[in-house]
Amino acid sequence: MYKIVFMRHGESTWNLANRFTGWVDVDLTEKGILEAKNAGRALRDAGFTFDLAYTSVLKRAIRTLWLAMDEMDMMYLPVKNDWRLNERHYGALQGLDKGETAAKYGDEQVLVWRRSYDTPPPALAPDDERTSFKDPRYANLEMSQIPLTECLKDTVARVMPAWDEEIAPAIRAGKNILISAHGNSLRAIIKMLDGISDTDIVGLNIPNGQPLVYELDADLKPIKSYYLGDQEAIAAAVAAVANQGKAK
Amino acid sequence: MYKIVFMRHGESTWNLANRFTGWVDVDLTEKGILEAKNAGRALRDAGFTFDLAYTSVLKRAIRTLWLAMDEMDMMYLPVKNDWRLNERHYGALQGLDKGETAAKYGDEQVLVWRRSYDTPPPALAPDDERTSFKDPRYANLEMSQIPLTECLKDTVARVMPAWDEEIAPAIRAGKNILISAHGNSLRAIIKMLDGISDTDIVGLNIPNGQPLVYELDADLKPIKSYYLGDQEAIAAAVAAVANQGKAK
Repeated sequence: MYKIVFMRHGESTWNLANRFTGWVDVDLTEKGILEAKNAGRALRDAGFTFDLAYTSVLKRAIRTLWLAMDEMDMMYLPVKNDWRLNERHYGALQGLDKGETAAKYGDEQVLVWRRSYDTPPPALAPDDERTSFKDPRYANLEMSQIPLTECLKDTVARVMPAWDEEIAPAIRAGKNILISAHGNSLRAIIKMLDGISDTDIVGLNIPNGQPLVYELDADLKPIKSYYLGDQEAIAAAVAAVANQGKAK
Repeated sequence: MYKIVFMRHGESTWNLANRFTGWVDVDLTEKGILEAKNAGRALRDAGFTFDLAYTSVLKRAIRTLWLAMDEMDMMYLPVKNDWRLNERHYGALQGLDKGETAAKYGDEQVLVWRRSYDTPPPALAPDDERTSFKDPRYANLEMSQIPLTECLKDTVARVMPAWDEEIAPAIRAGKNILISAHGNSLRAIIKMLDGISDTDIVGLNIPNGQPLVYELDADLKPIKSYYLGDQEAIAAAVAAVANQGKAK
């Protein structure tokens, strides 16, 4: 039997400001820092040990991982940064305030863009200064690999090769793995693990900074999954995520 | 032409307490944290960019690297943790106060243990609780690879394969590399690069938290080397290192 732990990064400055973030490299808030430390402490107190960690190339996920590693006194863990674990790219919505966007287009259109499986938001123009083409962390990618927008289906299509080629073989090799990533890159993995439909996956809300444990059988099929920590606080955090993006 | 940057970690709690540290996993002091941030800022202000970072499995070097990466806004850099970049193992002196040890054995004996090329301090007994045999970060090593004491010659012998097998090929592949390590693992590399004799290397003092730049030719021979930053402060820091371990 195998075990893997997922963490969505702690609250970011743009979670707090209710802005669409995507690939924009915003940092954690003070609350997010605390959530990350608490996640590390919960893992430590529950006796988890790890051989390897994966994260994205975005600092909110990296810092969450670093803070958790520090709390676990495991700063020496090997870390693999994989751009394929990045948050879903939010296209031309990146940087926009969710409330304003909702007020302009209506809750329903925003919910479609946020939660439809296969309808991407409007794409960034290739010459928009918000594209990631000149960012050195993507310098080794083909231009065609760098998105200008993504629907969740696109995110799934980019995340799954990271799972299939990197993470799943490491699990099978007996490595205990911690993944610090984002709401939608984690949705992609959980969709596959739990066999969730295209329709239902959009309703899955993953709270910030709560370690999510999956126990897997020899075929990497889930035996059970659960959040570590105070279950009431987790239910409240899940509800808070579900309410993001509504007009206020 | 190639460029590589070395950093000795910022001041640690046991640098401050004047205790022999070696493989003991002590953290940075507040001053050490500041030194690490300043190093990152100096690198950023001088326009350095990196593709890859190496560090040891000891948190004072890892935290120094993390803080510098954060200041450079390059938290996404791939980091390779290599136990072979650890500080020299100080054997049975690990944990002892340098002043007390000097008062007991005399400045000269302590200086021999600290600075002789091939005289190791007394070894830890294999059943001493201070050995690293049960530490999970060394779980993949052969027991014979885990030292009970080291002279600088031993440290050189363990560091050089990391250079030859990992770091030098990465430099030749065109990677810009930052190495965050320790006084003696950096001495080992610099000894080789600059062709310093066994006698002279013991007199080379590397200050904490000062980026040391080496420009290398096509054969990885040094063209020039220099510390980044305020040269007076660096001279003072070098002198401070030279005075460590004297009885007070």
